[in-house]
Amino acid sequence: MQNPDRTTVREGAFGNATGLVCRACGAQQELGPHYACLECFGPLEVAYDFGTVTREQIEAGPKSIWRYQPLLPVPTDIAAFPNTDPGFTRLVKADNLARELGLKTLWVKDDSGNPTHSFKDRVVAVALSAARELGMTVLACPSTGNLANAVAAAAARAGIKSVVFIPENLERPKILTTAVYGGTLVAVRGNYDDVNKLASEIAGEEEGWAFVNVNVRPYYAEGSKTLAYETAEQLGWRLPEQVVIPVASGSQLTKVDKGFTELGRLGLVEPTPYKIFGAQATGCSPVAQAFREGHDVVRPVKPDTIAKSLAIGNPADGPYVLDTCRRTGGAVEDVSDDEVRDGIQLLARTEGIFAETAGGVTIATLKKLLASGQLDPDAETVVFNTGDGLKTLDAIADRVGPAATIDPTYTAFTAADLV
Amino acid sequence: MQNPDRTTVREGAFGNATGLVCRACGAQQELGPHYACLECFGPLEVAYDFGTVTREQIEAGPKSIWRYQPLLPVPTDIAAFPNTDPGFTRLVKADNLARELGLKTLWVKDDSGNPTHSFKDRVVAVALSAARELGMTVLACPSTGNLANAVAAAAARAGIKSVVFIPENLERPKILTTAVYGGTLVAVRGNYDDVNKLASEIAGEEEGWAFVNVNVRPYYAEGSKTLAYETAEQLGWRLPEQVVIPVASGSQLTKVDKGFTELGRLGLVEPTPYKIFGAQATGCSPVAQAFREGHDVVRPVKPDTIAKSLAIGNPADGPYVLDTCRRTGGAVEDVSDDEVRDGIQLLARTEGIFAETAGGVTIATLKKLLASGQLDPDAETVVFNTGDGLKTLDAIADRVGPAATIDPTYTAFTAADLV
Repeated sequence: MQNPDRTTVREGAFGNATGLVCRACGAQQELGPHYACLECFGPLEVAYDFGTVTREQIEAGPKSIWRYQPLLPVPTDIAAFPNTDPGFTRLVKADNLARELGLKTLWVKDDSGNPTHSFKDRVVAVALSAARELGMTVLACPSTGNLANAVAAAAARAGIKSVVFIPENLERPKILTTAVYGGTLVAVRGNYDDVNKLASEIAGEEEGWAFVNVNVRPYYAEGSKTLAYETAEQLGWRLPEQVVIPVASGSQLTKVDKGFTELGRLGLVEPTPYKIFGAQATGCSPVAQAFREGHDVVRPVKPDTIAKSLAIGNPADGPYVLDTCRRTGGAVEDVSDDEVRDGIQLLARTEGIFAETAGGVTIATLKKLLASGQLDPDAETVVFNTGDGLKTLDAIADRVGPAATIDPTYTAFTAADLV
Repeated sequence: MQNPDRTTVREGAFGNATGLVCRACGAQQELGPHYACLECFGPLEVAYDFGTVTREQIEAGPKSIWRYQPLLPVPTDIAAFPNTDPGFTRLVKADNLARELGLKTLWVKDDSGNPTHSFKDRVVAVALSAARELGMTVLACPSTGNLANAVAAAAARAGIKSVVFIPENLERPKILTTAVYGGTLVAVRGNYDDVNKLASEIAGEEEGWAFVNVNVRPYYAEGSKTLAYETAEQLGWRLPEQVVIPVASGSQLTKVDKGFTELGRLGLVEPTPYKIFGAQATGCSPVAQAFREGHDVVRPVKPDTIAKSLAIGNPADGPYVLDTCRRTGGAVEDVSDDEVRDGIQLLARTEGIFAETAGGVTIATLKKLLASGQLDPDAETVVFNTGDGLKTLDAIADRVGPAATIDPTYTAFTAADLV
């Protein structure tokens, strides 16, 4: 394995990024394959010196996340490297759903249009760039679904090796949608926690390996900011008043907040106030629990929910989610698996968008927050659909089907009185 | 049911379209819910008086097929009506695949990024507009897959009724991905031919019903032209030299030709020569057979292939495909189901794009045409991936999987010697 050496990193490898900073103690570190603070072992995030960034500059860029290159830890020539070019997905004005829920203005940011149909393509694309610039030669991850798809596809397109670790008992469709890209898929005897632990161990031993969500995580996580940038740009360079975001590790929610804040500071939007709401499934709702109980820390839980892509019992960014939601005047709420199924059907029926279970969590939470008065029905609201219903068909399998089965004749059709 | 009356159609309901013209005898008809020539029963297509259309006008439009509104039979305010806003999907430079096949320049137009992950969203969106402008109140279709998804989703979003007819024995995932949108799904005791026949019968009896691929087919089919427009625009307003397109009814292939021709006539691109190649699965290859045998007509076959979305044994546009491919110097070729599976894996492994079986047909045909010398390896080539591998997982189920199953320890990992 190649040992990544900071001295070989080329000028501008990370764009306007200037270093890594500890989110816990504020200590600084050089850009490199680091993810824990040398002082306090806290999580690192990317710091920047943006200079001037204009709307015109962004609007002239490619129709992908790379239009925001000046705001990401990637080089100015990023679009020249083969990657899946994710992003710039639809922002759908959801008038039917708004009407049904009694909301004035609602938008759905629909990330199921990404290359492997989840928001993970965004974060993996940024992690891939960091891995390449750091001279790393293998793109890897532990995963049970969307991330596995995104890593395997991105590595195939980039022409580098991928190694994806999954629990042995993973559902066959999820295995197929990763294995088809031809990387190395490794089944591990154990549950997701075992797989995760093994991944961290390998990351520590094999220095040429970029585990996207482990040792290049600070770069990876920045990819989620593009959800905020795109939402604001697609609204006509404006911030929404309320957003509802699913919470797994919590990284996405905190990065959307970071993205909105950056846009305001750079003068790309008016820095108008916004409230951020987190959505969890009751079967894995440690952050919602902590929010309700007024705690600053999150007590780990053992997940038991159909929303597998949100089933992280010990969310790394949990405390930051609590801080963000409290600071902006939002909340964290959770919904039952039946409400999740209702949420999937509600969005599909009203807007023609078929979300995975995580999207069902978000829609159901939106509904619950409105009913409880925590969301203002008159404030412009954006919800994030981060994945695709095609990947979680089981959730609705017992709920929908043909209205009738008829003989192939017009008489049989009219007799059935279907419309 | 409401009887659509031409006198109530508003001014500009069909944009620059001026009438319907018979593709067989050239007879003209007024715009309306017509699909067969009154003179000879031949198929109708839309005729236009485009006037002046500029690149700037198109580039200023929305990032969907509606940027080409002046070239489609839709009103100028089309973007204001709720629909799934399909199109403007990725054109991916496929250097890895090109290298592997010995091609100089290859692009993949990847329509799996559409709202319901196939090109059918394009044609359904145009059919929906026609149905609405004609005062029709039900969006319907007979289908076994992609079209069913697209119709159900588009109708949900538009807030109108949908009725989708499927064969009773359709695979459960395809039922779920249609039924979730909440329209009326009708299972029919019989095969796809029985369903199709019933649909035509209902279309003849129920005048307020828009069967997208039956009685509003002339409008529906025009949606496929946007594949040509987007390809040319994304190439920097240039036509490719060779394109490979899957053939089911054959409509898409002929409309891509129509689209390229229109762009040239309007001065939006240089009218440089191009060759169009058709791709079929051997188990349903009536057009490829006719091409090889030098016939002008297509003899129907009974389909038997894993490429279900191309399994039309009696393709309506078969003769026009033969004419288009011969006229442009192209060809129609077919590939075995095993080659289709190889094609899916080849595209996934080299470019990170997971295509449905129809895409596998196209990639495998590309390879075969190169090997036989029918395609020029030095000419710029575009292939169309029209659907998503997530919908046809069975095709690869026996071919891909984990490289190994290991215990969750670093020792077990290194012992497995995986990378």
